[in-house]
Amino acid sequence: MTVTQKLAKVVFQPSGRRGQFPVGTPVLDAARSLGVYVESVCGGRATCGRCQVSCSEGTFAKEGIVSSRDNLGEVTSAEARYKEIRGLAPDRRLSCQATVQGDMVIDVPSEAQTNRQIVRKRAENVRVPVDSTVSLVTVTIAEPDMEVPRGDADRLLDALKSETGIQDLSLDFTLLRSVQGTLRAGHWTVTAAIWQDDKARPTVIALWPGEKRTVYGMAVDIGSTTIAAHLCDLTNGRTVASAGTSNPQIRFGEDLMSRVSYLQMNPDRQPDLTKAVRDAINSLVQKLVDDIGAKRSDILDAVFVGNPIMHHLFLGIDPTELGGAPFALAVSDAVHTRAIDIDLDLNLGARVYTLPCIAGHVGADAAAATLSTAPYDSDPITLLVDVGTNAEIVLGNRERVLAASSPTGPAFEGAEISCGQRAAPGAIERIRIDPETLEPRFKVIGADPWSDEENFAEAAEFVGVTGICGSGIIEAVAELYMAGVITTDGLIDGSLAAKSPRIVQNGRTFEYHITDFTTPISIRQTDIRAIQLAKAALYAGVKLLQDKLGGAPIERIRLAGAFGSYIDTKYAMILGLIPDCELENVSGIGNAAGTGARIALVNRAKRREIERVVRDIEKIETALEPKFQEHFVNAMAIPNKVDPFEKLRAAVTLPAPRVMDEADAPDDGGRRRRRRRG
Amino acid sequence: MTVTQKLAKVVFQPSGRRGQFPVGTPVLDAARSLGVYVESVCGGRATCGRCQVSCSEGTFAKEGIVSSRDNLGEVTSAEARYKEIRGLAPDRRLSCQATVQGDMVIDVPSEAQTNRQIVRKRAENVRVPVDSTVSLVTVTIAEPDMEVPRGDADRLLDALKSETGIQDLSLDFTLLRSVQGTLRAGHWTVTAAIWQDDKARPTVIALWPGEKRTVYGMAVDIGSTTIAAHLCDLTNGRTVASAGTSNPQIRFGEDLMSRVSYLQMNPDRQPDLTKAVRDAINSLVQKLVDDIGAKRSDILDAVFVGNPIMHHLFLGIDPTELGGAPFALAVSDAVHTRAIDIDLDLNLGARVYTLPCIAGHVGADAAAATLSTAPYDSDPITLLVDVGTNAEIVLGNRERVLAASSPTGPAFEGAEISCGQRAAPGAIERIRIDPETLEPRFKVIGADPWSDEENFAEAAEFVGVTGICGSGIIEAVAELYMAGVITTDGLIDGSLAAKSPRIVQNGRTFEYHITDFTTPISIRQTDIRAIQLAKAALYAGVKLLQDKLGGAPIERIRLAGAFGSYIDTKYAMILGLIPDCELENVSGIGNAAGTGARIALVNRAKRREIERVVRDIEKIETALEPKFQEHFVNAMAIPNKVDPFEKLRAAVTLPAPRVMDEADAPDDGGRRRRRRRG
Repeated sequence: MTVTQKLAKVVFQPSGRRGQFPVGTPVLDAARSLGVYVESVCGGRATCGRCQVSCSEGTFAKEGIVSSRDNLGEVTSAEARYKEIRGLAPDRRLSCQATVQGDMVIDVPSEAQTNRQIVRKRAENVRVPVDSTVSLVTVTIAEPDMEVPRGDADRLLDALKSETGIQDLSLDFTLLRSVQGTLRAGHWTVTAAIWQDDKARPTVIALWPGEKRTVYGMAVDIGSTTIAAHLCDLTNGRTVASAGTSNPQIRFGEDLMSRVSYLQMNPDRQPDLTKAVRDAINSLVQKLVDDIGAKRSDILDAVFVGNPIMHHLFLGIDPTELGGAPFALAVSDAVHTRAIDIDLDLNLGARVYTLPCIAGHVGADAAAATLSTAPYDSDPITLLVDVGTNAEIVLGNRERVLAASSPTGPAFEGAEISCGQRAAPGAIERIRIDPETLEPRFKVIGADPWSDEENFAEAAEFVGVTGICGSGIIEAVAELYMAGVITTDGLIDGSLAAKSPRIVQNGRTFEYHITDFTTPISIRQTDIRAIQLAKAALYAGVKLLQDKLGGAPIERIRLAGAFGSYIDTKYAMILGLIPDCELENVSGIGNAAGTGARIALVNRAKRREIERVVRDIEKIETALEPKFQEHFVNAMAIPNKVDPFEKLRAAVTLPAPRVMDEADAPDDGGRRRRRRRG
Repeated sequence: MTVTQKLAKVVFQPSGRRGQFPVGTPVLDAARSLGVYVESVCGGRATCGRCQVSCSEGTFAKEGIVSSRDNLGEVTSAEARYKEIRGLAPDRRLSCQATVQGDMVIDVPSEAQTNRQIVRKRAENVRVPVDSTVSLVTVTIAEPDMEVPRGDADRLLDALKSETGIQDLSLDFTLLRSVQGTLRAGHWTVTAAIWQDDKARPTVIALWPGEKRTVYGMAVDIGSTTIAAHLCDLTNGRTVASAGTSNPQIRFGEDLMSRVSYLQMNPDRQPDLTKAVRDAINSLVQKLVDDIGAKRSDILDAVFVGNPIMHHLFLGIDPTELGGAPFALAVSDAVHTRAIDIDLDLNLGARVYTLPCIAGHVGADAAAATLSTAPYDSDPITLLVDVGTNAEIVLGNRERVLAASSPTGPAFEGAEISCGQRAAPGAIERIRIDPETLEPRFKVIGADPWSDEENFAEAAEFVGVTGICGSGIIEAVAELYMAGVITTDGLIDGSLAAKSPRIVQNGRTFEYHITDFTTPISIRQTDIRAIQLAKAALYAGVKLLQDKLGGAPIERIRLAGAFGSYIDTKYAMILGLIPDCELENVSGIGNAAGTGARIALVNRAKRREIERVVRDIEKIETALEPKFQEHFVNAMAIPNKVDPFEKLRAAVTLPAPRVMDEADAPDDGGRRRRRRRG
């Protein structure tokens, strides 16, 4: 094995970190140099087996690489010994032994990232009357009688019909195999779970011997990055357990459009993406039931939400039609199916419901968020924004509701930012910049003290300071603007390099240097540009909807999703990411999509409500609107070139408008168009 | 390998022939010595591979053996060479190389019995109005529109609702994966198959690009011995293809009770029996569609009938509750499910319907036969008898219908008869005995001339004369009775040995010798006893129902099933197998169960009709009726001890009643009780 100066590109998933490494670099070293956490206990001696990784094969157009596990180098004798003694799955390698021999996408399995992933999707309380699809009925039936040779299942059904008055009750086919054993085990007393929803025929979907008092449902929000699942008691609506995991589809592409383009390049791989997300959900189910000492078979209903591409892949539908105009959904209405039809390991008779999708890029997650905030039920005009790689925007009140999506790109999630990273330990999430000295102080995830507090170094030593996440970059840009470091049009004022060593020239532009604690972390001009493009796209989408609504002021703003929960709304408004509004009427509402899913799980009428609302929502396709471009250009300025932001100015003193010479403006290299959908 | 005089028992399936062989006998030789046809072209040199067999493993209580493939002896070098060059499935052996080393049940696969199995289930014409569950509708829908982003599936469903007026139409989940491709392939014109049945929600279950004019349904009668399937055009109701095969479950037990007892001994093997019958049906599907150049995916609906044990096993239900009192059915009502839920490879959206079962031993096959003869719609009192291992009996008219089963055992199918065999080439099916000389003449399946015609020897040489089948044994016993060889109580009159060399003493009793053409074939006293027991059981069941109906005379008799189609009704009545009736009103109606299945396939209203009729039928449990025993004892006589059979006597001159001394009567060894259910 020769170590040369030839470089290979390696992308680590699910963290998304990437770098170029000399051929021959041990994979574990490559991971560590990028701050990618891979567990290792034995010091690289191929004995602990904790550092296992796998390589995703295929063409990754976005990365410009063809990834092959052949590029992991030869199996060393130490690794072969480990494999012989302890066993190793065929797709796994020990990263302390494998070396970088060519371009690769490396998947770090979740067990090797133990305790390192923060899933920022929490369960908020749901307050709706409980009227779930499942009711439990306990009956005792007569024993079989040779003179009246009616089948065991039929006598059971007769008894249930008479007990409940549901005359068209039917029995799920899957129960026929077990009905005799269950009846006998319960000495002819059994508890039946009766499922009723919409126009479907009421059906007995599960059966237990004797009495059974509690059954569960699951509400799942499938995000492109993370999957969050909640277990709810269907008898009282309470959320009894929550769990999250990263979406393993990340190894096929970090953002939505990368996954679609992966499928365009590898058209037979759709089942792999579908299996990846279903497997992850099946693992989450185990976590949830283990948490409360229940069984998988206690779960009888499951509600799923997600953006259209996640929704389609989860249901086993090829999403490539969503990759280009006219962005045709295979199905937009709510989908009813059975858990076994989509390989979910719940009760054999468990049912599945997905909320309707609003449009080609406004998904069931937006519908769920709409259900949880119910703008269609309020007088004040409410703006609901769920920022992911696409911003999904819903605006309106009980008179009229409109929806659109805007292609913000992944900048708000820390991607496409030079020192960006996901919200994980080590990421800068808060920052303040002294307007006099231009010195920063900041706080990282996983360490309590701020950087200017005395015990910071000790607290941060373990997690390091490895990058800056979405909320951190928003605050950084807003603080730089407030401190006068960047102008109204978003350029770093290089003349300040004379005043502070933090302003550093980097080619034709300047950057603001924050820290060297672990690795150098700076905000570059291109980072600010990325944030401007993202926030301009979002704002332009909101403005379009506001135009359609007749220009009435927005009275309430609700920011959904992880990003919306963690950013400081004041900074978001200073940047002009959200429109002008009384700051007290702006709030993050957490994982509204997950909340909406739980509402639909525990209350059937809410399913009908959101189905009706989604049909009535006016869908605006931003790409077809001539005014989008004008709104977009105006929104590139901070906070905005034309909108006055009077309510914000009443609360915060903004710097005077100030622009630099156009010739100095950095080239944005057509990045916006490239990221039009994703 | 040592050849000793130790003997091993070998049972060949599906023929059911069995024998004891010295350890070391080649399996192919053992088969041939029993007249079991196994193809072999190379003369036992292990090169043609046609003589493959497999061994069924497990405990076979009825045979009293534990069968193991280890008993097939070592693989010879010739066989190993064949396996290396041509390949051999792991469970297969070449019977020319394998040797008998211990007790075994050997399965001769259908390809090695080519052209040897006669499936005596034909398709009769069905004349009912066509109103199947499936209708085809062709629609053209608008292309996707970004401004109205409704899913492709939803726009399709909207168009179909508007075209058909079916407002609660839904789309089968399995179609979501393909709907976009189908719409685009058809340039937005597609044909949908809409399924509607009973209380289920109308559903689009299949979709084709462009126009589609013909779709098919399948009607299948699952017998314990044979499976018969018919393919019908669902648009016009015509039967377009039929095919049959032996039921591969035979390797787990020849008759129903043997299979149930196999499951009691090997409780985890139910899925094997279920898989065996489903695999056989999937093979039949291929034959049917190949016959007419259609595709599996053109089959959208399938109706199944069978006795309760076949019905349960087919649906994946453990039938062991049916093995003993109270003979509890898991389900008696009609079952609706989907082909994919029971591993049938039809169209992905295809539906499955099984007719209701009448009682624990009166199955969906009897319900189907009832549907096809409709006694409940006629004025004359009609007796419907379907003779299998159980006789299923339905009696009544439009006033009242009763049903029961009677445990006839397998004697009518040629089993438990010393020279008995199934209806297959080489079996004697017709016989006449000269009352003066007591010389027989007979006819065998597969050879046209009677045995006293000059070209018989030439014609019979290929098939041989290998045994006597059900219709042959009935005629033989009746002719022996008419010729005065056997008495009213069924004993062979040994004094006739002086008159004819055909009457031969065999221990304490006598036998009648028919032929030595291939192997010696005789009717023994025990054979006559078996036929008496079987016919007495059947007759006693009929009498019980007649009692319940007030003793009114039976005006029409319909004999269903293979047995009913091939026996001469006159001989059946002479034996007292069926009650007295005008001979012209007695007829065989062929595979009435299959006909009923086809009726239910092409006409939904007929499904509702038979469901209603089955609920109203009065079920009589013969085992619980005190008079059963008395009727049974009377019916042991030929034709009957007390019933006069006046209509028969008007047509045929019966011998005067004549009994022998009771002391001479052979012992029946409690066989009847042992065979109480089977």
